[in-house]
Formats: sequence, structure tokens, C-alpha cells
Amino acid sequence: MFQLLSNDSKTKARLGRLTTDHGIIETPIFMPVGTLATVKAVEQQQLVDQVKAQIILGNTYHLYLRPGNSIMREAGGLHQFMKWDRPILTDSGGYQVFSLSGNRKLEERGVTFKSHLDGSKHQFTPESVVETERVLGSDIMMVLDECPPYPSTYEYALNSMKLTHRWAARCKKAFDESEPLYGHRQFLFGIAQGSTYKDLRQASAEAIAELDFDGNAIGGLSVGEPNELMYEMTDHITDFLPAEKARYLMGVGTPADLIHGVARGVDMFDCVMPTRNARNGTVFTRNGIVNLRNAKWKNHHEVLDESFPTDFSSKYTMAYLHHLVRCNEILGMTLASLQNLTFYLWLMAEIREQLAAGTFHSWYKPMIERVTTRL
Amino acid sequence: MFQLLSNDSKTKARLGRLTTDHGIIETPIFMPVGTLATVKAVEQQQLVDQVKAQIILGNTYHLYLRPGNSIMREAGGLHQFMKWDRPILTDSGGYQVFSLSGNRKLEERGVTFKSHLDGSKHQFTPESVVETERVLGSDIMMVLDECPPYPSTYEYALNSMKLTHRWAARCKKAFDESEPLYGHRQFLFGIAQGSTYKDLRQASAEAIAELDFDGNAIGGLSVGEPNELMYEMTDHITDFLPAEKARYLMGVGTPADLIHGVARGVDMFDCVMPTRNARNGTVFTRNGIVNLRNAKWKNHHEVLDESFPTDFSSKYTMAYLHHLVRCNEILGMTLASLQNLTFYLWLMAEIREQLAAGTFHSWYKPMIERVTTRL
Repeated sequence: MFQLLSNDSKTKARLGRLTTDHGIIETPIFMPVGTLATVKAVEQQQLVDQVKAQIILGNTYHLYLRPGNSIMREAGGLHQFMKWDRPILTDSGGYQVFSLSGNRKLEERGVTFKSHLDGSKHQFTPESVVETERVLGSDIMMVLDECPPYPSTYEYALNSMKLTHRWAARCKKAFDESEPLYGHRQFLFGIAQGSTYKDLRQASAEAIAELDFDGNAIGGLSVGEPNELMYEMTDHITDFLPAEKARYLMGVGTPADLIHGVARGVDMFDCVMPTRNARNGTVFTRNGIVNLRNAKWKNHHEVLDESFPTDFSSKYTMAYLHHLVRCNEILGMTLASLQNLTFYLWLMAEIREQLAAGTFHSWYKPMIERVTTRL
Repeated sequence: MFQLLSNDSKTKARLGRLTTDHGIIETPIFMPVGTLATVKAVEQQQLVDQVKAQIILGNTYHLYLRPGNSIMREAGGLHQFMKWDRPILTDSGGYQVFSLSGNRKLEERGVTFKSHLDGSKHQFTPESVVETERVLGSDIMMVLDECPPYPSTYEYALNSMKLTHRWAARCKKAFDESEPLYGHRQFLFGIAQGSTYKDLRQASAEAIAELDFDGNAIGGLSVGEPNELMYEMTDHITDFLPAEKARYLMGVGTPADLIHGVARGVDMFDCVMPTRNARNGTVFTRNGIVNLRNAKWKNHHEVLDESFPTDFSSKYTMAYLHHLVRCNEILGMTLASLQNLTFYLWLMAEIREQLAAGTFHSWYKPMIERVTTRL
């Protein structure tokens, strides 16, 4: 499914292409998060026309709870349910079980937990998660893993990693023994863990690579560790992940994190940051980061960036946008979400262009400076 | 500014046209409410392209508090501030002072009140409201009035009405002695009150008509009285409002209320209902009213009305829309708001077509049945 098109000569960055039955994805790519079958505050056609999203993400934990597998199966899967005909990746739900649900109990068989919505009791096993992702019909399915917190002791990280590997093998088996439900192909990605221990990261990358998934993810980063440590771990682990398969850094990150990740050999990213921050009034632009709630924008009766193709940047004045955010108006959230996602996808397209032109190595450090500026 | 095009032969309904410097408005018309310089959850271009709104409303009370007259003046008025180049009507803020703010004190000079946001103290007078509406630059300005609650004693209603008349005269004077700020014409409408007393309603209609405003509004209805009483009062008061000027029934109402109002001689309506109810999951359609939260929609994997031109009606299944509303997703609010507003404007266009064809009298009663059906 993954085709490595070229390697950058001066960094570990790569150009690639993922082929799915719902379309081709050019990498490096960012995947907007559509937690509950909607990328928050944005309509599907806007994702196509304006954001130019090539693939979006759905959250298995959330969709398993609402609307639930029975309705999702009747609907004909997530693509049909939300009327999205481009590729979808679903996570395994493991991360949300550990971060959102109560009273969770981790055992060899799987994890039991209480719903964050109504306290009802549920169990996820490697096999049940594969089954749920079959029902969702995502193009790329993720295995169930345990994501250890930061910091974790070496012993905790080691045991957790081993469990993650055993679960990965069980997911692979369940995947191989089941069929897609809706007539299109589904792929399965493994997830390497290992916390912030280099030897564990290497061991995990090798163990997951050994299972021969369709692609490989790096889990357990961006969970509170310093940025430099995340970059160091990413740089380290990509040395042990097969070059001929896509590499996905889960839950990352800021615009700067994406550039850092690409330079260290990552092909795919997802994060709630562009949409979540938008709803709080933090906006990413080509010239840096804007806090819309800042009183400095109250009297700024001009647009921010007249050549950027969003209503946020080139139609409405900063004074108006500041007013909307200050009043918690939904329009402000929608305009900012569209801005952030369009910017994230613009940034990835820019990265791909620089890689194709062979200019990425001289472009990326100044770009990191630029996108981290506080406006 | 108003041109009466035709009178229906069998009801009091009329076809007309309002001409403003921001465009022509075909009446009868419904005006979406854009309280804080945004029609909640909808983007301005969607109002043009999809809703086909001809004029929207801004709330003077809310805009006076946020962003405030100073910023609004710098922005060049409400049209510029929110990038809306079609007509705008602003209310006087009086209604919100009485319904939202605390510690209000009514005097001959005006009304002092505390902001519902921060408790700060303010005063609205007939003259200050005209000044604020000059700053807003609305095409149609409304006079400051007192809207008595339902029920009110005859004595209260009488005294309140007299105050409203004195304030109306002061607004007219302040209007005549001031100039528009942005180079386009502004018009001023009077408001007739009188609670639910027929003789007061007649007296108020005549007193307001006497002041020779550009148009006349009916205030103080849809404040909790029975529907039949609202229809009866509307029917009564339109007999005493000049035929050659537009008649605006403030704050009304349901789709059925609009049809009833038109049949009784009303040309203009506004109401938060289509947007507010949308955000709560109540949706108006050509075939009746839908409560999206109802469990009956959970498994309804079909669209509601494939020939109605909204994503709500013809793109997404009811199961998906039910899911969005149940999860309080912004997309659900936006899709439902667009549905309700598009339906309201469709209904008004349909009314105008029936009037033009001379078929309104036989069309309107079955249509009231249809739009009040619970689906």
C-alpha cells in the first residue's frame, strides 16, 4: 500500500504515497481528527474543498460508545455514516480507554473500563477492537496497544511494551482471519512503544516490524515529555522501522512538531490541536501563532493575511474575529478550525514541494522559526 | 422605501417591496437574527448562497455592549464589521434591556440598566439609541419602546404605551436631526404597543402612524400570550396601520405564525426560533417539525427530504444527524440552523409565489396544517 518515492539527501525526510480503495494519499501528510464522525465544527465538503484533507481519523473508543457498532453496521460503516468518501484511519481506542474512562483494569486478555458517558462497563480486547474497526470499515486500522504515561519506570515500560507486542500479534491474527465488510480493502498498522528508553524503543520497533504490518506507528510520545526528548526518540526509532513502510507518529503535534517529525523520517501525523485550539481562539498561520483573545486584536480592523485562502485570513478583520471568539460564537470556532486545518494541510503540501525540489534541508529550520513566532 | 405591489383579494395578505441602499427586499419576508454580528452557527456567504436571506437583524443592546460603539464606528459600521453587504435592520435594544439586564430603572428620560455580562451600568434614551443605530449603520433602525409583559393591567399598558409614544416622537426628532455616517440611507420604523387591549392597540397604531415613520412595527406580541390572542391582536392592529407602509411583526415566530401573520396583513418578521431551536435539535421542514433527539431517528438510515436543497435534508441520514445532536457536535447545530433558515426563507418565497398567483387563500390553511405536523 505504501510506495516510498524518494529520500531527502540531507535529512531523514521522505516523499511517499499511500494507496487505498478510497484514494491516494501523498505523504508526508497530516490527518484531521474526526473523533465522533465529524471533524469538529467543520462540514465534510469544506474538508475536501477548502482544507484539502486527503485522509481523516475516527476514534474507535468514541464511535464504539456512540453511535455504537450495531448502528454503524446498519449504516454501512463510517464512510457511509458520515458521507466521507476519502480514506479514513481509525485508532484502536486504547489511548482513550487509558485517558478518559474510569475504573479501568488491564489484564492479559484486554482492558475493562467504564464509559466516560454513563459509567457502563465494557471490555476491549485485541480481537474485539479489530472487529469494531471492521464494522467501522476504516481504510487503515490500528492495533490495540497500551500507552504508558510519562514518565514511566523502566520496568513498567518494559512490561507494558511486551504486552503491547503480544496484543499486536493477536490483532494481526484476528485481522488475517477476518474479512472487510463493505467490499473495500482495509490495512492494519502496528504500534511501537517503549516510553523514553532508547533500548526499548529499538526493541519495540524491531518486534513490531517483525509482525509485518501494512505500516508502523510510533505511540507513546507527545504525552507530556519535553519536546526535545520527543524529537530524540522519534529520530532514534525511525532507524529501526522498515523504510519501505509508512511511519505514523501518533497524536503529534504543533506545526513545528510536524516539521521536526518529517525531518526525522515520519510520514503521517494526527492531532486534535488544530481543531481544539481553534475553538479556544488559538490560531496557526503562515506567520506564526495568534491568540485571538488577546486585547491587541480588538481594534485591528484589517485582515491577517490577504493571500491565504481562508475566510479567517483574508475575508474577516481581526477585530471581528476577536469579537466572535470573545462572545464564544460558533462562527468564530468554525472559521478558526478551518484556518488551522487549512494551514496544517498547506504546511504538509509545502513540505512535499520542498522535498520534491530538493530544498527541504535549507527550508525547514527557518520555517520552524516562522511558525513558532507569537503574533 | 416601501412599495405595495398587490393586495390579496380574500385575505389581508400583501405583496410588497422594500428598497434600501443595500438592495431590494421582497415582502412578505423573514429576517434571520444576527444578534452579535453573526447569525449563530452560520457563515455570511451561506446566508447568501443557501439561505437566500435578503435582510438580517442585529441586536442593538448586544452590539452596544460588545464590541461597543467605539469599535463599531472604527470598523465603519455593522455591514463592514461583519462583511455583510445586504440590508440590515437593528432593533432598539429596549426588549433586551427589559428581558436580560438587571436592576433596570425606567424613567421619562430613558432606562438605566446593568449589563448582563459584567453588571456595569448603562443608560438608553431615545436619543442615545438613535445615535447607536447611526453608528451601526443599519438600513432600518427601530425606535426605543417599552415592551410590557403579558399579562399587563390596563393601567400599566396604557401608561407604558403613552411613554412609548413620547419616546417614539423623541426618536423621530433625533433621527431627523442627525445624519447617516457611512454614505448610505437609513430609515426609521416606529413601534405600536398596547398589550392585549384592542382600544389601546388601535390608539397606538394611530399615534405611531401619525408620526410618519418609514415603516411601522407591532411590538409586545409573542411575549407569552396564547397564539389565538396574538393572531387576533395582529388582525386588529393592521386595520389601523397605514397600508402604504411596511408592517413588521416583531419577534414572531413559528412557521405557522408567519403564515397567520401574512394572512393578517404583516410584511416582515424576525425571530431567534429557527437558529435557537436548531441548536437544541428542533428542525422545521416542509413536512413538519422534527425533534432530532427523539430515539426514533437513531436507526433511520435515510435522508429526510431528498428534494430539499440543504445538506440536512438531502445529504446526511437522520441517523447521522441524530448522532451529531446527541453528541452536541457543532456540525449538527450548523446543519440544523441552515436547514431551519433555508426552510423559513423558502416558506416566505412560497408565500410570495402564492400571492402573485392569486392562490394564497386556498393554499395557506393546509400549509399551516402541514408545517405544524410533528414528524
